[in-house]
Amino acid sequence: RYDQIVLGHGGGGLLTNELIQRLFVPAFRNDVLEALEDQATLRFGTDNGVKAPRIAFTTDAFVVRPLFFPGGDIGKLAVHGTVNDLAVGGARPLFLSAAFILEEGLPLADLKRIVASMRSACDEAGVTLVTGDTKVVDRGKGDKVFITTSGLGLVPEGRSLSIRSARPGDCLVVSGTIGDHGIAIMSVREGIEFETVLESDTAPLTDLVRVMLDACPSIRAMRDPTRGGVSSALNELAEASGVGVRLDEAAIPVGAEVRGACEMLGLDPLYVANEGKLIAVVPAEDAERLVAVMRTHPLGRNAALIGQVVAEHPGMVTLRSIVGGERVVTLLSGEQLPRIC
Amino acid sequence: RYDQIVLGHGGGGLLTNELIQRLFVPAFRNDVLEALEDQATLRFGTDNGVKAPRIAFTTDAFVVRPLFFPGGDIGKLAVHGTVNDLAVGGARPLFLSAAFILEEGLPLADLKRIVASMRSACDEAGVTLVTGDTKVVDRGKGDKVFITTSGLGLVPEGRSLSIRSARPGDCLVVSGTIGDHGIAIMSVREGIEFETVLESDTAPLTDLVRVMLDACPSIRAMRDPTRGGVSSALNELAEASGVGVRLDEAAIPVGAEVRGACEMLGLDPLYVANEGKLIAVVPAEDAERLVAVMRTHPLGRNAALIGQVVAEHPGMVTLRSIVGGERVVTLLSGEQLPRIC
Ligand SMILES: Nc1ncnc2c1ncn2[C@@H]1O[C@H](COP(=O)(O)OP(=O)(O)OP(=O)(O)O)[C@@H](O)[C@H]1O
Ligand SMILES: Nc1ncnc2c1ncn2[C@@H]1O[C@H](COP(=O)(O)OP(=O)(O)OP(=O)(O)O)[C@@H](O)[C@H]1O
Ligand SMILES: [Mg+2]
Ligand SMILES: [Mg+2]
Ligand SMILES: [Mg+2]
Ligand SMILES: [Mg+2]
Ligand SMILES: [Mg+2]
Ligand SMILES: [Mg+2]
Repeated sequence: RYDQIVLGHGGGGLLTNELIQRLFVPAFRNDVLEALEDQATLRFGTDNGVKAPRIAFTTDAFVVRPLFFPGGDIGKLAVHGTVNDLAVGGARPLFLSAAFILEEGLPLADLKRIVASMRSACDEAGVTLVTGDTKVVDRGKGDKVFITTSGLGLVPEGRSLSIRSARPGDCLVVSGTIGDHGIAIMSVREGIEFETVLESDTAPLTDLVRVMLDACPSIRAMRDPTRGGVSSALNELAEASGVGVRLDEAAIPVGAEVRGACEMLGLDPLYVANEGKLIAVVPAEDAERLVAVMRTHPLGRNAALIGQVVAEHPGMVTLRSIVGGERVVTLLSGEQLPRIC
Repeated sequence: RYDQIVLGHGGGGLLTNELIQRLFVPAFRNDVLEALEDQATLRFGTDNGVKAPRIAFTTDAFVVRPLFFPGGDIGKLAVHGTVNDLAVGGARPLFLSAAFILEEGLPLADLKRIVASMRSACDEAGVTLVTGDTKVVDRGKGDKVFITTSGLGLVPEGRSLSIRSARPGDCLVVSGTIGDHGIAIMSVREGIEFETVLESDTAPLTDLVRVMLDACPSIRAMRDPTRGGVSSALNELAEASGVGVRLDEAAIPVGAEVRGACEMLGLDPLYVANEGKLIAVVPAEDAERLVAVMRTHPLGRNAALIGQVVAEHPGMVTLRSIVGGERVVTLLSGEQLPRIC
């Protein structure tokens, strides 16, 4: 449909999806990649015939603008984003790599601040940054700093979460309010003023996930709703599992400021990025207990049951709205907010 | 010394070294990173008390300009570079990730061509690309496409190569002519004409390394002399092992065209980048046999013994020149050729 890359190809919605499905997947074709999970789970052969541990592997590039924003910075985001893609697969994040693309003229003080922030984010998440790379591009050929992190985690034996595992009757749980990261970035970029400073929700989800899986090993799948928001995460889940998803708008937690900003800007919080939230799919009988456990954790205190997995309309997400009626929640088309992460 | 990033910080020489040693290493401080090997070697705990396999992990960002050049393209380079950083650690490369930073306006046809090239490079090197990421930056905030690959490989039990292991008396072997990649890039960029087209040497070293280690398990260390050339690779080795290195200029293989171009441009081939070459450190008694074995392999047909490890001048590399006399080979200072890989 396009013969050139447009910003929407990076938006995490329809265009990103099409680019991955039509260009990258056919070229690289293999079972692990094609599952399109948030992380690849790998087993390495051993020489001695012993069953090797399963290792989760993931990567993300970070190009967020501005570099520093309320609640975080590109470095923190680069650690959290990769840690979270491991954590939502049920892996214990252990090691990171970081490759920096620096633009000529970047103040070293900024780089120092970013790197210090990465180190403390690593410490908080319990991961060690073990290898890196540093490239420089000429002025005007980059934008201050881009960081690509890759991560490795250990998947405990017997655990296997997958976005292919949702079944009709399952419940959908979100760990807290949605849209905070996207609106925080948008507000600094557009100079929108709130009564209080609206902060990004960027956070490492490792500990929340641990608490959840300890209490509720029946959890079938988790995703972090980053670019493209809750809408992308659930559409991809519905597609991968061949099920429908039905959301209840009244149940979805949205902060007052985010709601206000979304109304003002004509945005739907379902499409806005999060960087410290997750969605879990859990059998109905365990859903209430899971929400209760999540609420005991600082990162899950606004956890809520937001919908169900259904047999009807496979591959499709619908929303029962507050004012009544049901509508389809499609993938984000076009680009809402470039360079959100 | 600098308060802003300059191109030389990406050159692979003195400035890169200082940036890593003074900014990144102090911030991220940990034993694995501080070894500054081409790859981190990790062991993952298992639940069952069984000794887990050792896994090599590495990352590189690729920002080469132009995207397509004689002998290769950015995609091929992104696969080879990461595969080679695993291979020179004695690991068998198995899995790759790739994160793309695309500039708005990039022709999809170019992206397709790059991705197809990556796939065939993966096939040739025996690795599978299992996970990826796609970001888009606005026009003028990137340069067509940057690719960061990370790689995982399996290190056979009992093998431990390290740039800390060189000992006085050891011999230094190079796998072929030096400077081909850097001069190939420079010649397309500067429009220099040769009688024949000078091609980049970009190649996966996995199979050559396998043949070498099978024949000669006594090999102590290997490095791929990429940015900063042979000079950086050997200075880092001398530093890490606390030994001196003495090179014999007459023994170093340099192609006629590279030699000519270097003379014309006032460059020293020792500082020019390679993307399909390696340097090995081997005990003297095995050196001749190693060179003979390497010469049986297409990627090692110009292999040569180029110098010795010495107890004198620890941390320093010297060169006995063809015309007589000995000089110090320092790290590249400044920037010879930005965005070579
Ligand atoms: N360029 C690419 N090549 C191969 N696979 C890709 C590429 N880009 C994305 N993918 C794959 O597509 C799936 C979705 O990727 P995506 O980046 O949208 O997920 P995410 O990392 O969870 O989201 P975000 O990047 O917003 O944090 C993943 O399985 C990923 O491995
Ligand atoms: N930004 C960084 N943060 C942490 N470690 C880094 C960073 N950049 C480089 N390193 C480490 O410094 C060492 C040298 O890195 P360098 O990139 O020069 O090696 P290389 O990948 O073999 O060379 P090239 O990038 O030219 O292929 C490696 O051990 C690498 O992990
Ligand atoms: Mg991600
Ligand atoms: Mg590198
Ligand atoms: Mg994710
Ligand atoms: Mg490298
Ligand atoms: Mg290397
Ligand atoms: Mg991603």
